[in-house]
Amino acid sequence: MKVLRVDMNRLDVRSEPAPTAYELFGGRALIAHLLLDEIDPTCEPLGSGNNLIFAPGLLGGLPGLSSAGRLSVGGKSPLTGGVKEANSGGMAGDKLGRLGLKAVVVEGQPAEDGLFLLHITTHGAHLLPADDLRGLGNYDTVARLHERYGEEVAIASIGPAGEMGLAGAGIAVTEDLTKQPGRQAARGGLGAVMGSKGLKALVIDDTGAPPLPLADEDLFRRAARRFAQELIENPKTGKEGSMHLYGTSATMLAVNEIGALPTRNFSSGQFEAVQEICGPRLRETILARGGKIGVRCMAGCVIRCCNVFVDENGGPIVSTLQYETLVLLGSNLGISNLDDIARLNYMCNDLGLDSIEMGAAIGVAMDAGLAQFGDAQAALNLLRQVKEGTVLGRLLGNGAAVTGRVLGAKRIPVARGQAFPAYDPRALKGNGVTYATSAMGADHTAGNAIGSVKTVDPLSREGQAELSRKLQRIAAMLDMTGLCLFARPPVVDDPQLMVDLLNGRYGWGWTVEDLERAEEDVLRTEREFNRRAGFSEVHDRLPEIFCREPLPPRNAVFDIPPEELAKTTEGL
Amino acid sequence: MKVLRVDMNRLDVRSEPAPTAYELFGGRALIAHLLLDEIDPTCEPLGSGNNLIFAPGLLGGLPGLSSAGRLSVGGKSPLTGGVKEANSGGMAGDKLGRLGLKAVVVEGQPAEDGLFLLHITTHGAHLLPADDLRGLGNYDTVARLHERYGEEVAIASIGPAGEMGLAGAGIAVTEDLTKQPGRQAARGGLGAVMGSKGLKALVIDDTGAPPLPLADEDLFRRAARRFAQELIENPKTGKEGSMHLYGTSATMLAVNEIGALPTRNFSSGQFEAVQEICGPRLRETILARGGKIGVRCMAGCVIRCCNVFVDENGGPIVSTLQYETLVLLGSNLGISNLDDIARLNYMCNDLGLDSIEMGAAIGVAMDAGLAQFGDAQAALNLLRQVKEGTVLGRLLGNGAAVTGRVLGAKRIPVARGQAFPAYDPRALKGNGVTYATSAMGADHTAGNAIGSVKTVDPLSREGQAELSRKLQRIAAMLDMTGLCLFARPPVVDDPQLMVDLLNGRYGWGWTVEDLERAEEDVLRTEREFNRRAGFSEVHDRLPEIFCREPLPPRNAVFDIPPEELAKTTEGL
Repeated sequence: MKVLRVDMNRLDVRSEPAPTAYELFGGRALIAHLLLDEIDPTCEPLGSGNNLIFAPGLLGGLPGLSSAGRLSVGGKSPLTGGVKEANSGGMAGDKLGRLGLKAVVVEGQPAEDGLFLLHITTHGAHLLPADDLRGLGNYDTVARLHERYGEEVAIASIGPAGEMGLAGAGIAVTEDLTKQPGRQAARGGLGAVMGSKGLKALVIDDTGAPPLPLADEDLFRRAARRFAQELIENPKTGKEGSMHLYGTSATMLAVNEIGALPTRNFSSGQFEAVQEICGPRLRETILARGGKIGVRCMAGCVIRCCNVFVDENGGPIVSTLQYETLVLLGSNLGISNLDDIARLNYMCNDLGLDSIEMGAAIGVAMDAGLAQFGDAQAALNLLRQVKEGTVLGRLLGNGAAVTGRVLGAKRIPVARGQAFPAYDPRALKGNGVTYATSAMGADHTAGNAIGSVKTVDPLSREGQAELSRKLQRIAAMLDMTGLCLFARPPVVDDPQLMVDLLNGRYGWGWTVEDLERAEEDVLRTEREFNRRAGFSEVHDRLPEIFCREPLPPRNAVFDIPPEELAKTTEGL
Repeated sequence: MKVLRVDMNRLDVRSEPAPTAYELFGGRALIAHLLLDEIDPTCEPLGSGNNLIFAPGLLGGLPGLSSAGRLSVGGKSPLTGGVKEANSGGMAGDKLGRLGLKAVVVEGQPAEDGLFLLHITTHGAHLLPADDLRGLGNYDTVARLHERYGEEVAIASIGPAGEMGLAGAGIAVTEDLTKQPGRQAARGGLGAVMGSKGLKALVIDDTGAPPLPLADEDLFRRAARRFAQELIENPKTGKEGSMHLYGTSATMLAVNEIGALPTRNFSSGQFEAVQEICGPRLRETILARGGKIGVRCMAGCVIRCCNVFVDENGGPIVSTLQYETLVLLGSNLGISNLDDIARLNYMCNDLGLDSIEMGAAIGVAMDAGLAQFGDAQAALNLLRQVKEGTVLGRLLGNGAAVTGRVLGAKRIPVARGQAFPAYDPRALKGNGVTYATSAMGADHTAGNAIGSVKTVDPLSREGQAELSRKLQRIAAMLDMTGLCLFARPPVVDDPQLMVDLLNGRYGWGWTVEDLERAEEDVLRTEREFNRRAGFSEVHDRLPEIFCREPLPPRNAVFDIPPEELAKTTEGL
């Protein structure tokens, strides 16, 4: 396996063998170690001392394996000031893996204000001028690059938001079937880090790449088959399962039911118009209009949770309209029209903005009186301001925390400077614990308790710390292997299955305990980075208002005490 | 001595004896201890858990003593997130001291959106509705309160900026001779803390207050006389001294000469038009127009450094036009017309904004292209935006750090979130050390090396840490006793003189070593507060660009290494 070193100071790309010390690390784990080892944790995120790392998971690039091609992107976050790994579906992770690349590490910054793309093929990798792409949205960028390099390449790119250095900027990744930049490594502002390095896009072409070696082909094939079979037979991920039928929005009615659905800037946990935007309604609308359901973002995925949302005439608006977006740009803004939400989503994707961060920022702005809740046109106009680079646009584009601070808002839904995703921490306290204690800040993929409400009462103070810790470990496991969160049931139920996949691929002879140690190691390494960056347990908190203001209709507050929160990070 | 407890939750004021444990503390020292003991250092600065403290120094309220009536104001800072003491000349410190008050501690927040004033007399203290003052600038506020309470009261008030909760908001204090709100406890956003508590003004009436007791009247009188005599005879503070003749702007040409005068957003250390705004020019302009020079802000001050700057027809524009303002709103914006600067200063005072923070924020905004350097009308328009509460106005009003972050600026002159005052840390490295390591953030009164350039080369890396530590101790001594920075020579030359003043007043039997211990205790207590608030040595840094970008014309960078910086806080 190789590591690509992209030196933006000298505009030079080197391929080097992956150091053996990093052999056991992939995806998020590799990012954690590379950041801790190679950058100064106190560096300025948009300065030349930060690195931007693209890394497939340990199981990326293996065609026979379902749902394991997620791409991890990492760096020091301009939003949180801490370590950041954001990951994304789409084609890029698998293709980087297929090319035998453990990581692409982008270092430094060009002296001039240049803009470049990195073209990666089996023949090597090259930096090419990309000034012609300057200011283009992700859709136009991808269209031009498809024209130049063909439709089969995977593209990871930034839109104007990343070029502008906005801390709400993500990195778009093209999907398998639609070939559109519909996925994002969205969180933490890594798009701004990419912009700060003068890098507009990665174009990844794995044509001609040989299959990856398998240490124990038989073991791997059996495990991969069993994995796929279990996903197909699982009542949630299978053909009749809610995850296939409704995608990520499958969970919306349940979140609304427990009273944790962010509504009108987190002022309520239930949305009166939830039926207008929920999973079944989304599916029904798409099917009635001739859109697509059951689309896959990665080759070989058997779950196929994605969709192509179309307008009344069947013309595509956005792919894929997902739960977090439906809530943050929907109920959180009091907006109940799917077309409106889809258009806002498209605009976020095109500008290269995290739809969670933007939904939260616009929600805060609406709450501060800049627009009325429910006014979709106003929300669209606010996003246009980002595009135009007005002061208000730049403010919103820098996220909910700074927006709230500048506007003097009372309720600012953030942890560690990053916006809450679509679960109010007061009514789903396990998520509150994750938001407060994860090195990632508020993140729905860092340890999400929504799947555990039957075993741990989401309103109770009991057991949330232990639950969050366990879920954070599982999240680390998924993110280091490149597995999709939706594909977790088989390996959570039987970790030996994951061990078999890894042993089959690499021949490490791991046990389940080795896997668990590796999971803990991710959390510990990330926390150590943050410690050196200046964070301590003092920062493991939610904003005071969420500990004080009861959330209707359950009237819950976030009341997990610091001692309990500390259990979540014990030994890290 | 008493402490006034103002409970804004219950709108209730209690007077209680000052706890004996706080006997030895005054001003900044008392604030440090009260904050550490009584508030949670992790609290949100504008939340109900923060306290706002007004405290005269240990030597406040003694009519026979020159230059010792400064008012310390403290709380957790919304700008830095750390401990904050900002102090101010004017009448308020002496009058609080005269009333036998060690501190006024404002706690909690009113449930409703009420606005109040605190009226303090010898008969007690009362909260009174002040809704009629809502939105008024400091000048109108003071005019109305003078009408109601007479001209001899001291007033500490906030303008619209404080009511709006802007982190650049200060607390204005009326001056002795002009009776105008020309002084501010400006730094760190304490005006916003006052606004968050629904407190518009303190009206302090010491009519009928008995003289303060003196433990050893003879010792005190002798020391006070010697102190005054030495100030009068000192070549700088005496009648022909530059501090009397030119006020704080006496230092400008020297700062320009060493190349540390902030010019056009800290892009140069010399201003080509420095002669237009320097001390001699200021004096000459004022005198030619019939303004005033040699005005005192506190009763009994023998230095009398203040001025009344008037327009061409002799009508007052602002009192007192000072060095920090002349630079931050002058050379730092490329503005070389004293009338323009005076009008910007007036507007800052009226809105209740820190002119340092605003000058830095506008400088950053100009650098980011929002206006041209040198365009005074544009600067005035930007301040008007603050008044109007536009998004841009609120952004600027929240200070240089957030302005720079949102606008994507490259050079943001801040430490710990607070704007650099009028000394570039690259060419006056002792100040850079203070900015980086002081619990206060970048502050010209926390340990200013401009007086030491003859003993420590301001461009050298040697000796800066030791120098800053010594100066930080001296600053603590001044701020706990209420002494003006200008009045330091006699007590710095002979600390026994300060010990005599304290022993004369209180009968503590202190030695110079006791005084030094008390100074260290201030620094240690403040650092401990910040430690608990989440700060560590990692935060003792200047922004990277100041360590990398050479400052013309000396082409200096800030190159004091972390190990050296750490010496400044050794044992704290």
